[in-house]
Amino acid sequence: MGISYLYLHLVMSNKYHQIDARELHEFTTDVFLAMGLSQSDAVLASDVLNSADLRGIDSHGVARLSGYVRLWKAKRIKADANPTIIHETHTTATMDGDEGLGLTNAAKAMDIAIEKARVHGSGWVAIQNSNHFGIAAFHAMKALEHNMIGMSLTNASPLVSPTFSKERLLGTNPICYAIPAGERDPVVIDMATSAAANGKLQIAERKGEEIPTGWLQDNEGKNTNDPKGLKGGGSLLTLGSTKEMGSHKGYGLSAFVDIFCGVLSGANYGPWVPPFVSFLPLAPDMPGKGIGHFVGAIRVDGFRPLEEFNKNMDQWIDRFKSSETIEGQEEVIIPGEPEKRQEAIRRNEGIPVIDKVYDDLRDVAKD
Amino acid sequence: MGISYLYLHLVMSNKYHQIDARELHEFTTDVFLAMGLSQSDAVLASDVLNSADLRGIDSHGVARLSGYVRLWKAKRIKADANPTIIHETHTTATMDGDEGLGLTNAAKAMDIAIEKARVHGSGWVAIQNSNHFGIAAFHAMKALEHNMIGMSLTNASPLVSPTFSKERLLGTNPICYAIPAGERDPVVIDMATSAAANGKLQIAERKGEEIPTGWLQDNEGKNTNDPKGLKGGGSLLTLGSTKEMGSHKGYGLSAFVDIFCGVLSGANYGPWVPPFVSFLPLAPDMPGKGIGHFVGAIRVDGFRPLEEFNKNMDQWIDRFKSSETIEGQEEVIIPGEPEKRQEAIRRNEGIPVIDKVYDDLRDVAKD
Repeated sequence: MGISYLYLHLVMSNKYHQIDARELHEFTTDVFLAMGLSQSDAVLASDVLNSADLRGIDSHGVARLSGYVRLWKAKRIKADANPTIIHETHTTATMDGDEGLGLTNAAKAMDIAIEKARVHGSGWVAIQNSNHFGIAAFHAMKALEHNMIGMSLTNASPLVSPTFSKERLLGTNPICYAIPAGERDPVVIDMATSAAANGKLQIAERKGEEIPTGWLQDNEGKNTNDPKGLKGGGSLLTLGSTKEMGSHKGYGLSAFVDIFCGVLSGANYGPWVPPFVSFLPLAPDMPGKGIGHFVGAIRVDGFRPLEEFNKNMDQWIDRFKSSETIEGQEEVIIPGEPEKRQEAIRRNEGIPVIDKVYDDLRDVAKD
Repeated sequence: MGISYLYLHLVMSNKYHQIDARELHEFTTDVFLAMGLSQSDAVLASDVLNSADLRGIDSHGVARLSGYVRLWKAKRIKADANPTIIHETHTTATMDGDEGLGLTNAAKAMDIAIEKARVHGSGWVAIQNSNHFGIAAFHAMKALEHNMIGMSLTNASPLVSPTFSKERLLGTNPICYAIPAGERDPVVIDMATSAAANGKLQIAERKGEEIPTGWLQDNEGKNTNDPKGLKGGGSLLTLGSTKEMGSHKGYGLSAFVDIFCGVLSGANYGPWVPPFVSFLPLAPDMPGKGIGHFVGAIRVDGFRPLEEFNKNMDQWIDRFKSSETIEGQEEVIIPGEPEKRQEAIRRNEGIPVIDKVYDDLRDVAKD
């Protein structure tokens, strides 16, 4: 949700290359093929990155490509991974991701959840031994074309402190629900459970600006407005920011994501979740395997006829959309709406890639 | 989560009666019997209220009893309701609550979800045509004794504005997950998706104190520190409080709850959810039936052997519990821990009931 800060920054700074989405997709596919992924896996992984770039979630698109390559070079990502189901009931399963890309593991797990939902009404798959899965929305939205509600969660390397703690014990652990509608666009809720994501700090740092109170604490646990505070050993705050404003709720949500993705799947959790950057060492005594995800699908017509649901969803959307706004705001936003708008623009006009990422991609290409 | 503000206020103000939990349970059972509930329904409804009082969630215990009675008198709650399943797959169902108490409807729906999970791995029940269901945790926690994870959601009468809106379109729409552990206590996340609940405003008002910035906006959509602002036509803010701090995330979560409980079940949603207080009229042109809930259960051993999960859960809890705290704080709190502590104290020492509620109960008894 929300307009991409990076995008605004890019457009303002004018230091970017406008690249056609299909061209970018071809390029990432070639890189994944060169890493040793199968043709279908390379295309699938590129689909996930492309989807992030199209939807304006620049931090999760091609900007990450060199990171995946480095993890593969460091032997933390296996290119020819063969994910398998290691535990199963009618409606639940656990997948061993075989150290593969989370991009492909989570998408394949979602297909299994959808198939279970088709037969039994709902399906839920926990994934262990995986890696960064890209944008959560890509996986959850796979359910939409089947008239199902999709859900996707992932844990992530620890950057966030629980309420009252000064240790980094949680990731930005996103929650995503994708809900179909009738004539209207689907409602897609895709949110980190921290007050702000790391990307916003990086942008503030690049611009030499302070960050708002409530995003970050320093290594003593005191609020800081310095975006460099995270690199200095500080930690991001959970949604709610302070106990008084409900940070224990953001902590509770992040804990739920960590437990579903890490503990339920047999992956790592809390401070043991492996870092995305390859130069950081793995934590000692890891209790599980890799990063964990959790995905699911549930049939709308498992509860009521689809037409009735669609009609009511459209009314829900219309009522919220037509809500009277506070001064200075033109519209109430439906979750998923800004990303949908970005996609329409970017499919047409291309994807803005900043210099730094562009150079990064050139290095990857040479390599 | 969090220590009960009302309880602290009570103890400080000294205006309360300490009543044994069993005595209170007997009293509420008698009231429900007098309303015309069956013996088993009266006991079940009292179990839910008693659980709130024991866990320190005073706003959802006997303090609500007279409200249920008034709704019954206003013919908005049916005492001899006969909830039925009107739609079903292996793992999903929709219950028509027949205008009965949400307290009993949600508990019965949870039993159905648990039975579906026993057979198929997971079970999910949406409930329409219902009323206020008490504390969310009571229903979700029913899953724990079956070594399942429980979930419960409900929508509620509109008091909360989405980001950028000045209209009340959402309830405080709580999310609850109850997750079993091994030797340790279960992790129970039970949270409103607003920054603060209405009860905290009432306490501030009684004490003549201001409320923190970020809880409430007035009828113009401007932040207010006056707890009476809600009665003046203002609205509660979603978790995150401002767009900059992530209020769109609290809005997204609240929307998810409203859609699962209202749209998926065929109940009302958004501004059409019926009010808890009997003196307020119902909204015109209601699109659904009554209030909606959504409950579910999922087997831990649907994903991995229970002993492995329990071992890792205990480690998760121990690691978070032993986390280094920020200055001025003695401990990091595990979700559900404060309520567990309250329950141990209150089971022993009785439940503090304030004068106002005590008088209310006496009136109900006379009646």
